[in-house]
Amino acid sequence: MTTSSSSASSTSSIWGGRFESGPSAVMEAINASIGFDKRLYRQDIAGSRAHCKMLAAAGVISDADRDAILTGLAQVEQEIETGVFEFKTALEDIHMNVESRLKELIGEPAGRLHTARSRNDQVATDFRLWVRDATDRAQAQLKALITALIGQAERHAATVMPGFTHLQAAQPVTFGHHMLAYVEMFGRDLGRFADARRRMNECPLGSAALAGTGFPIDRFMTAAELGFDRPMANSLDGVSDRDFALEYMSSAAITSVHLSRLAEELVIWTSAQFRFVRLPDGYSTGSSIMPQKRNPDAAELIRAKAGRVIGDLNALLIVMKGLPLAYSKDMQDDKEPVFEVADTLDLSLLAMTGMIAELTANVDRLRAAAGAGFTTATDIADWCVRALNMPFRDAHHVAGSIVKMAEQRNVGLEDLSLADLQTVEARITPEAMKVLSVDYSVASRTSYGGTAPANVAEQVARAKARFLEG
Amino acid sequence: MTTSSSSASSTSSIWGGRFESGPSAVMEAINASIGFDKRLYRQDIAGSRAHCKMLAAAGVISDADRDAILTGLAQVEQEIETGVFEFKTALEDIHMNVESRLKELIGEPAGRLHTARSRNDQVATDFRLWVRDATDRAQAQLKALITALIGQAERHAATVMPGFTHLQAAQPVTFGHHMLAYVEMFGRDLGRFADARRRMNECPLGSAALAGTGFPIDRFMTAAELGFDRPMANSLDGVSDRDFALEYMSSAAITSVHLSRLAEELVIWTSAQFRFVRLPDGYSTGSSIMPQKRNPDAAELIRAKAGRVIGDLNALLIVMKGLPLAYSKDMQDDKEPVFEVADTLDLSLLAMTGMIAELTANVDRLRAAAGAGFTTATDIADWCVRALNMPFRDAHHVAGSIVKMAEQRNVGLEDLSLADLQTVEARITPEAMKVLSVDYSVASRTSYGGTAPANVAEQVARAKARFLEG
Amino acid sequence: MTTSSSSASSTSSIWGGRFESGPSAVMEAINASIGFDKRLYRQDIAGSRAHCKMLAAAGVISDADRDAILTGLAQVEQEIETGVFEFKTALEDIHMNVESRLKELIGEPAGRLHTARSRNDQVATDFRLWVRDATDRAQAQLKALITALIGQAERHAATVMPGFTHLQAAQPVTFGHHMLAYVEMFGRDLGRFADARRRMNECPLGSAALAGTGFPIDRFMTAAELGFDRPMANSLDGVSDRDFALEYMSSAAITSVHLSRLAEELVIWTSAQFRFVRLPDGYSTGSSIMPQKRNPDAAELIRAKAGRVIGDLNALLIVMKGLPLAYSKDMQDDKEPVFEVADTLDLSLLAMTGMIAELTANVDRLRAAAGAGFTTATDIADWCVRALNMPFRDAHHVAGSIVKMAEQRNVGLEDLSLADLQTVEARITPEAMKVLSVDYSVASRTSYGGTAPANVAEQVARAKARFLEG
Amino acid sequence: MTTSSSSASSTSSIWGGRFESGPSAVMEAINASIGFDKRLYRQDIAGSRAHCKMLAAAGVISDADRDAILTGLAQVEQEIETGVFEFKTALEDIHMNVESRLKELIGEPAGRLHTARSRNDQVATDFRLWVRDATDRAQAQLKALITALIGQAERHAATVMPGFTHLQAAQPVTFGHHMLAYVEMFGRDLGRFADARRRMNECPLGSAALAGTGFPIDRFMTAAELGFDRPMANSLDGVSDRDFALEYMSSAAITSVHLSRLAEELVIWTSAQFRFVRLPDGYSTGSSIMPQKRNPDAAELIRAKAGRVIGDLNALLIVMKGLPLAYSKDMQDDKEPVFEVADTLDLSLLAMTGMIAELTANVDRLRAAAGAGFTTATDIADWCVRALNMPFRDAHHVAGSIVKMAEQRNVGLEDLSLADLQTVEARITPEAMKVLSVDYSVASRTSYGGTAPANVAEQVARAKARFLEG
Repeated sequence: MTTSSSSASSTSSIWGGRFESGPSAVMEAINASIGFDKRLYRQDIAGSRAHCKMLAAAGVISDADRDAILTGLAQVEQEIETGVFEFKTALEDIHMNVESRLKELIGEPAGRLHTARSRNDQVATDFRLWVRDATDRAQAQLKALITALIGQAERHAATVMPGFTHLQAAQPVTFGHHMLAYVEMFGRDLGRFADARRRMNECPLGSAALAGTGFPIDRFMTAAELGFDRPMANSLDGVSDRDFALEYMSSAAITSVHLSRLAEELVIWTSAQFRFVRLPDGYSTGSSIMPQKRNPDAAELIRAKAGRVIGDLNALLIVMKGLPLAYSKDMQDDKEPVFEVADTLDLSLLAMTGMIAELTANVDRLRAAAGAGFTTATDIADWCVRALNMPFRDAHHVAGSIVKMAEQRNVGLEDLSLADLQTVEARITPEAMKVLSVDYSVASRTSYGGTAPANVAEQVARAKARFLEG
Repeated sequence: MTTSSSSASSTSSIWGGRFESGPSAVMEAINASIGFDKRLYRQDIAGSRAHCKMLAAAGVISDADRDAILTGLAQVEQEIETGVFEFKTALEDIHMNVESRLKELIGEPAGRLHTARSRNDQVATDFRLWVRDATDRAQAQLKALITALIGQAERHAATVMPGFTHLQAAQPVTFGHHMLAYVEMFGRDLGRFADARRRMNECPLGSAALAGTGFPIDRFMTAAELGFDRPMANSLDGVSDRDFALEYMSSAAITSVHLSRLAEELVIWTSAQFRFVRLPDGYSTGSSIMPQKRNPDAAELIRAKAGRVIGDLNALLIVMKGLPLAYSKDMQDDKEPVFEVADTLDLSLLAMTGMIAELTANVDRLRAAAGAGFTTATDIADWCVRALNMPFRDAHHVAGSIVKMAEQRNVGLEDLSLADLQTVEARITPEAMKVLSVDYSVASRTSYGGTAPANVAEQVARAKARFLEG
Repeated sequence: MTTSSSSASSTSSIWGGRFESGPSAVMEAINASIGFDKRLYRQDIAGSRAHCKMLAAAGVISDADRDAILTGLAQVEQEIETGVFEFKTALEDIHMNVESRLKELIGEPAGRLHTARSRNDQVATDFRLWVRDATDRAQAQLKALITALIGQAERHAATVMPGFTHLQAAQPVTFGHHMLAYVEMFGRDLGRFADARRRMNECPLGSAALAGTGFPIDRFMTAAELGFDRPMANSLDGVSDRDFALEYMSSAAITSVHLSRLAEELVIWTSAQFRFVRLPDGYSTGSSIMPQKRNPDAAELIRAKAGRVIGDLNALLIVMKGLPLAYSKDMQDDKEPVFEVADTLDLSLLAMTGMIAELTANVDRLRAAAGAGFTTATDIADWCVRALNMPFRDAHHVAGSIVKMAEQRNVGLEDLSLADLQTVEARITPEAMKVLSVDYSVASRTSYGGTAPANVAEQVARAKARFLEG
Repeated sequence: MTTSSSSASSTSSIWGGRFESGPSAVMEAINASIGFDKRLYRQDIAGSRAHCKMLAAAGVISDADRDAILTGLAQVEQEIETGVFEFKTALEDIHMNVESRLKELIGEPAGRLHTARSRNDQVATDFRLWVRDATDRAQAQLKALITALIGQAERHAATVMPGFTHLQAAQPVTFGHHMLAYVEMFGRDLGRFADARRRMNECPLGSAALAGTGFPIDRFMTAAELGFDRPMANSLDGVSDRDFALEYMSSAAITSVHLSRLAEELVIWTSAQFRFVRLPDGYSTGSSIMPQKRNPDAAELIRAKAGRVIGDLNALLIVMKGLPLAYSKDMQDDKEPVFEVADTLDLSLLAMTGMIAELTANVDRLRAAAGAGFTTATDIADWCVRALNMPFRDAHHVAGSIVKMAEQRNVGLEDLSLADLQTVEARITPEAMKVLSVDYSVASRTSYGGTAPANVAEQVARAKARFLEG
């Protein structure tokens, strides 16, 4: 174990004159966050800019200091964006890296910027801004995915396929209807991100270390400057709250579960046994040893990513559990899980959108499969209810007996004759035969939200209005 | 392993005439859900009632059948509520138990009730109604807890205590301010449950097995009858969606984290070393071997419960991950985690409300602790900024040196003389001495959301208006 | 909220004379564990029996008291097993319920049983014994499952099927080889449970509250009496350790993941599109609305159960995280997750064993699928390496070109002529044609652990010796 | 969304001639693993080296090719270690990056290296080697931590402190005894890692894609070359198994929970209210705004890290759940969680070892706290049992009444007179007074594993022998 002191001079200058030795190398490694929190540089500088303007407006610093600070911050930002900025682990985090460089650039006024704030409210503000951006991005990407799904739904409003329960063909549905089920799911996700954004859009800046401050700051001004709806109402809460990250990740976890369900379907649908769809070359890969393979790698990876997102949500819930107020260092472990979730969600949504937009439904395979497996058995039961006024439970037995007959003869329901059906239930009429076709079955399901092609077309129009317009 | 067939006759009667042997005993044990889903009886009967009325209104069943069914359902409900109903595992679930008893009571019309529906949309409706009730309950209980917290905040708007970061005293705050931080947290929880309720309030009934139905049902009528805002727009989604349960549990998980934080504070605050508060006898327990103990058991249990809630959320996210549409039996594992979360949340919120309402703050201990640990060091730094126009970073060094002096002499900051302070910074004036008192410190933090007693009183009023009125 | 005092008299008698009011009803509800810990009655009585004998042997209690206690405990046990015992919530837990009844039965000597122990070491002992039993059960059930898998492997050592990667047919394997892959997984699980059992087999009894005791107890005697290898070496650890539960659940989680993988395969294999196997009727269910369905419910439920087990492991890890020594009430939340895991694992292993033992492989479907999808492409590449001394990477390109040709003509590899192959690589000889057959391919893979039927037969023998004998 | 083709030429050359367009940029981003799996370079090269030697020994490649490959691999390794190697995302992963460079360096022979293997068994081997190294590292670091704990235990075998339950002082213990409790925990962790290592130490190399190979490879030779005990027995299992990673992470999760418990104690013990220990400067940090703070940041970070480790374990369990055999791309998501766990565990163990080795126990504070809170009440109860032959339950009531008397007078137990005690129980003798001292209490607890200083010294010796020798 290495415990030799490193960088003592620069770090002790941050903590004031009281520490006699700097942190050990191990401590520096576990303590420093600059390795990941440099991703917050834009938000950190935006927060400092807002704080600085407010301090000047409130008369806490002079206009000259304000101008020097703003000029300096602009240069720091440019240095970071152009890659010439040198991040230093000894300076621990993004806040001290920026401030330290600012001091090099403008001298004394840099030391006035930290008036009436603390790293506690500073990081809370930076991170909240970052998560807000991620939330906005998630919403935009969800809309792109919904657009792709609606496109397929429109194209395939009348394409029949088997509807599955238990991965067993149950009743015929349309491919468009199936796509629209996902539109509903991702549509709810949109709503969750929107609610989360609204709830997180309060500004912690000005909470200072934990108690607020005696300087005559204007928290409404900084909040507005940063696009927040209002300042947070309690300074202890301001520095100890990470709900915004938890709610963002909760929403992302549900979205990732939706993505994993669709991904699982793509993996199954592209198997040789199903061949329901063909994925674009751009989202399939080959094998280093088996030249014939055409693997749905992107779908598999998206499916896996749900594990990561759920694991990250779990991690931050655990970190926050049982933490006394206000700030504990444990909370530094909030960022990496969120960054990973955001990166994962971005990539998963983009890749899924690409696959959905470009996938080709194998219309013939889908139709053939739709009729296999006695999928219109319910239709014959329903016919008995309607035409013979039979209680559904009795009709269900009739249909069951008919399926059994077909199964024993190893034929489809449509291969049975009227006479066959009548051996099960004498009152069955020729009219009943037509309900055995998948097109009839699908077209008949006109209840609201049902799979009839006309309904699908109507729901496509409604989905566009609900999710993509305005 | 027991694989002998059991109850074959009754179960095969559910599944129709095609199965030649009933499920084995192991299968029955893993498959049956009646052991837990009987908790849905009220919702199941409500759903059947609404469906029945609608079928009659739509002309699918006769008014006489409707009346017979409604009378029968009322009797079934009464039998369950009075404890005379006999639940049968062989009938698998609440739906078949209710329907089977209905058939015994009213005969043939019972067989017509299942027209145009399936257990898939039936359970989706039942469960959604149950979760909606749990959501309403959570909101009511959160308001009770917020009321208790506001009560303490009002009582202790000016009671000083140490504000902690890293469990180290940082700056003085007020006990009321600390209570209000939790009001903010639980207030956000209220909002999350409200959003979840709004989003879940769509009716799956009428989705049937997965494809909708050809019967002329009126899904808007059943939705309205059950208090839903509208029917769900896609039948596949109607039977495969469990977002409402996931979102309820996500909200509960964040709430449970908040509860665990407060619980941790209570455990720490009641330790002999802190003695900040005293819990009511009703929420403390003794020891079987150590007679002097006064254990904060309720707080510890609430802290632990966050683990259970997070574990249950995790469980259902995992169950749903990668499930193809529409219904898979995996989804039967949705109920137990939700029931456990709801029971846990109910009990945790009630117990926390009881503790908060009745706890006694040890005002003297809190005051003494507020001043220990050099907690007004920031105030002297801030004074240097204000009075001497010193950059904050320099002022921070001055304050650090003063703390070091006090620490070396093993005295408090208030025990240093003006001369002492001036050896560190010659320009310090007698006026600076007053900022070393905790009352001065607290009273000075008047920034919005700050801990000044006047602010606390104002935020109490605002919190009442935001969370408890209207 | 109900806070009325309940059962004050009986509870205050447990805690001694110091509490002025009993716990409130909410407190009783959150605090009492008897609702679930009564499952520990057998272990609790066994622990008391061992403790009692040891106290008498050490001279701490008289032989007469010992005999009275042992007789009383036997009666308590019988009352519980015959269902006449009345469990009381006011007595909180299994320990006080048993002791209280013992006192009714035998009077004063009952009060001597708790000498030199505490509920802290008592519950630690009870629970450890329970988990040890669950561990033994898991091992026995794993062996039964391994036996079933080996049975199928033996039957199908030469049954060809497609080996999948990415759910795409990759290379032919045998069904027996596939079964043996699961034998390896469940064999590792066996080892994990055995290691966990060995590690947990130390006795906490005698740790007393947390510090040990001054009574001259013989911890080696009680340890031996209860089948433990030795007493635990540190009394604080004795009452605060729950590693045995965490390790049991970790092992169960990995086992449940293995079960879920096999379950997923069964769900896919029983789909109409695959039809690789047929499950026994006893493990399939029908549909209330779709009479033709034959759902792999047991497999789906087993798949889902992994979510529950992982969630429960997660829950207890979270509960234990950050708990200071020694005992905290949070640890009362250790039992329900473990009970749920044990019940779930029992049922999942039994149901999977039943399914595997009785499933029928569709040998013809498997063979047909084994050859589809150009699965012998690697064999032609390997032939080029062997016969033409071509670098594998070049051979891989040759095989890829041949697959492309077959794909474009929409034929299988075996349908190509020698001349066709020679247009891709002129040196291909007639001998190369034979490697295109699945039987040849499978038989050729004789590397250790490979899929050749001869290897499978050999590994069957080795697996029996490794897992089922001795 | 960017879907433009990128790097098509280089990637399509990996997959053979069949793909018409390369993967899109999004696909490349989600698919490529080189960003993280380059950490496997050393293991990848070791695996190739062993495979190459074996191919030559088996006559599959020539000795000249072998020598060329080994020379080339040595150069590749050196290029990576010296930082001159250029990793390419278009080459996807570490395997193709190494092989591609090898081909540049040595030409044709490089194309022969991939004979009789696949990326499936290659990555399984690489990753298993990496996890084995991490397991070895964990064991070494645990031993260092145990050494530090034993050091403190030896130093403080007789230092009295309060033993806590529910964070309430319960009975006096010694600081050394408390340290030894953690020795037991980390000692069990050692055992778990050792068992995991033994179980994972089987070699997957030679499983090829999934079915084994027809080349006459010697898997026992490669296994031995890489330090494995034997080759894995089933090729499907060889490429689909990730148990080794799950078991490593399970062990790490339990270890991280132990670390978090000790960390929580350090945070509490360093609070101003406790002041039980002082952490070295090197592991404490100051505040940017509050100059007096001395924050136990390292302890807090270690506490938080348990959340990350549990989250990562959870993530991989979820990824693996329900995956059909053999390889699915989901499994590429196995590495990042494991890398994160290993990095986290390394750092946490090192930092905890540093803190424990250098912490200072405040002996006076500990002694004072040990006697506060009536911690010897159990001793008076035990005295009544021993001296008066009172049943423990009655003695417990006597002790409770004595505590109540002391509490009402606001004095300690040792401040009561014999006459006072006799008002509660007349038979109490002067001899009873001595059991009220903490030193007497601690010294009396001589039961095996108890806290008596003599026991602690003995357990120190045993712990050294069990964990640190041999």
